[in-house]
Amino acid sequence: MTEPPGGAAADGNEEIMRATHRALRDHGYADLTVQRIADEYGKSTAAIHYHYDTKEELLAAFLDHLLARFVDTIRDIETTDPDARLSLLLDELLAVPSETQGLSVALLEMRSQAPYNDAFREQFAQNDEYLRYVLKAVINHGIDEGAFVTVDAERTARSLLSIVDGGRTRAVVFDDASELELARQVASEYVDATLR
Amino acid sequence: MTEPPGGAAADGNEEIMRATHRALRDHGYADLTVQRIADEYGKSTAAIHYHYDTKEELLAAFLDHLLARFVDTIRDIETTDPDARLSLLLDELLAVPSETQGLSVALLEMRSQAPYNDAFREQFAQNDEYLRYVLKAVINHGIDEGAFVTVDAERTARSLLSIVDGGRTRAVVFDDASELELARQVASEYVDATLR
Repeated sequence: MTEPPGGAAADGNEEIMRATHRALRDHGYADLTVQRIADEYGKSTAAIHYHYDTKEELLAAFLDHLLARFVDTIRDIETTDPDARLSLLLDELLAVPSETQGLSVALLEMRSQAPYNDAFREQFAQNDEYLRYVLKAVINHGIDEGAFVTVDAERTARSLLSIVDGGRTRAVVFDDASELELARQVASEYVDATLR
Repeated sequence: MTEPPGGAAADGNEEIMRATHRALRDHGYADLTVQRIADEYGKSTAAIHYHYDTKEELLAAFLDHLLARFVDTIRDIETTDPDARLSLLLDELLAVPSETQGLSVALLEMRSQAPYNDAFREQFAQNDEYLRYVLKAVINHGIDEGAFVTVDAERTARSLLSIVDGGRTRAVVFDDASELELARQVASEYVDATLR
């Protein structure tokens, strides 16, 4: 479901997305029901089903919403210097959550369900494709400007996302946010080794 | 539950472990029941509960069994050359599954449940501690022999496991074994950059 650019429907969706965020953060994915999201939304489940037929459809839309939020965040990165820009992107991708790890936990649960759930798999693939695209763009820009050596930018982007996903997985499994900080350093070491 | 070194009980446990492996590989974790494992075992659920009180206890024992199998595998690595040994360890950690990705899928599901399940969290932490220990040993050996530069071996081991876990997570989420091969190359590049 594409979100309209504004108006009541968009506001409704935005509120549902926030309610979904809180429900996932506080209850995780496995036990999540539309009723719980409705409780957070402060309306009936029917009000949610007016927008989304199924829980899966709603959660896939939520993954799309997270991507849209990330797009907004990187739109705020004003520097065009490839080095600084790549560094800020990696900072964002491996940021330590401000509150709890609750949403990260729920997202790993949803990722683990991708093999069983077409909507999740497609949305995770789409989010990853966008991240690869953004990383590739800044790497190619750096190559053009002579800041980076010539590499296969697609491969380097995918390698960096592998480091990112390793840190994210470990931070959840071991309940240890320092895994994100370590992965951020590994990403820097990898950039130094392969792009300079 | 510690597995006795031999005899009927050990054989029984080994058969249950194999049945658990097949059940997880074919059905995943979320829908796994003791009945399904018993079906694979060819005996009643009572025969399983004789050894394991709960499904969680059985699955934690299975994670321990996987660690024991990994210990056996690396015991077969005969080379003592630190470079070759580190390379073979990383090969093992990022080996492409011979049949399906079924077990890898189930393991990611179980990892995502670690925040809710003490037995899983403790066993995953124990497995990771062992892997760190093995990697640290070979890195320190390489430093002593002058094959590697002096580094914080604990940190380098943890960094390599972050790369390993990134490849494993992505291989499952995107159903793409080439993510394991890419992570293997990233691990090599990281070794080259930090240990030489």
